[in-house]
Amino acid sequence: MAELSCNAFLGGKVQIWQPVRGYRAGVDPVLLAATIPARAGQRVLELGCGVGVASLCLAARVPGVEVTGLEIQPEYADLARRNAVENAADFTVITGDLQQLPEALKQQQFDHVMANPPYFRREAGTGATDPGRDLALGGDTPLSLWVEVAAKRCAPRGYVTFIQRVERLPELMAAMHLHLGSLELLPLIPRPGRPPQLILIRGRRGGRADFKLHPGVLVHPGNAHQDGGEDYTPLMWDVQRYGAYLPFDNAE
Amino acid sequence: MAELSCNAFLGGKVQIWQPVRGYRAGVDPVLLAATIPARAGQRVLELGCGVGVASLCLAARVPGVEVTGLEIQPEYADLARRNAVENAADFTVITGDLQQLPEALKQQQFDHVMANPPYFRREAGTGATDPGRDLALGGDTPLSLWVEVAAKRCAPRGYVTFIQRVERLPELMAAMHLHLGSLELLPLIPRPGRPPQLILIRGRRGGRADFKLHPGVLVHPGNAHQDGGEDYTPLMWDVQRYGAYLPFDNAE
Repeated sequence: MAELSCNAFLGGKVQIWQPVRGYRAGVDPVLLAATIPARAGQRVLELGCGVGVASLCLAARVPGVEVTGLEIQPEYADLARRNAVENAADFTVITGDLQQLPEALKQQQFDHVMANPPYFRREAGTGATDPGRDLALGGDTPLSLWVEVAAKRCAPRGYVTFIQRVERLPELMAAMHLHLGSLELLPLIPRPGRPPQLILIRGRRGGRADFKLHPGVLVHPGNAHQDGGEDYTPLMWDVQRYGAYLPFDNAE
Repeated sequence: MAELSCNAFLGGKVQIWQPVRGYRAGVDPVLLAATIPARAGQRVLELGCGVGVASLCLAARVPGVEVTGLEIQPEYADLARRNAVENAADFTVITGDLQQLPEALKQQQFDHVMANPPYFRREAGTGATDPGRDLALGGDTPLSLWVEVAAKRCAPRGYVTFIQRVERLPELMAAMHLHLGSLELLPLIPRPGRPPQLILIRGRRGGRADFKLHPGVLVHPGNAHQDGGEDYTPLMWDVQRYGAYLPFDNAE
């Protein structure tokens, strides 16, 4: 196993072991977890859970949820299991591939399915030299398959939520439109007036509500980076530091 | 022919005859026309042109464009021809159905294709009692077919632009993703912080650029309707009163 570091999320409520070199979790899985409207007693599946940041942030915010993660890379899955134990979370990690779903998962449905799929198409090239990081950044499973598997594992009336780079929204929305209803889109606005680079999108199994395009949530308040400090909006601080819930309709 | 009224658009630069009862053009075709980046000498097709508001606004803004309109309802097509003559515009109107495209159109390709398709699915019911208005508000041609026909009639490297209610974005984006590239989405924000109700979406034939989600253009400045006056943003005034160009990246 490569050299590891232990990093704190949600103001220290969640401690995550991850490789020093390789794919390292940023704010994205934290935001994904923050938007999941799960309640105690519900079952949640994370596809491509990596070392478990989103799953463990969700478990920390919502006591009593039962979380399952699927991860294709055995080293990351092992770390996710270690992180589950060290955070005393109800988080089960299954090593396996979306494209050949393990039998244990095929039998189950979940109230919520979430995913933070690789952000770049593999053919575009990531330039990464670490093979684990390469796969985490640019997997070769099409987004449409991520959505199809998520929808199939989602219980009737359950929710499927993805976070993804805005560039891949057409592909993602087309797939969600095919398999789910009641779609909602939440753009993450980096700074006032700037185009979003990340989006959250959610669909509901069997949903029939109209599509909603939410005004978006502002990440940074100013117009430029301030030297020497992090300048998040109060809502973003609450999410990242205190593990607050981030509803899609936060600004309405 | 039903009772008609003559209405002014673009501060009087465009005069439009339309039925007093029935579908009446609002600001939407004006906005659609304002976003088309056409240049003198280029050819433009409007699918479902109605009485010709978008086409004639475009012709007024861009001298030297050659505009063709397709309209299924003969009464609206006749009015569009009359409006073309009275506005001295290079605007040819063909009566016909998207689903059985007239041969005259099948032979042609255009630098720009634009459309403001009916906003509601027919099965949802519009409550309209005027059959012309009923068809204009809730036609029975699926949006995916509008997009397919638009893409086929679009020349290589040409642009296809639609205006539509936000509720139908998933359907529209899925179809655009299938037939076009370089998609761009421009939400129309009714008031600050409010969710968009209308969107403009554009694709390019053979385009390979990343999808762009623009921050959106603000229609009204305040937080509530002001009594007794229209309160548009300066850009919206420029578009509606002076026929200004409205680029998708207006706010960036």
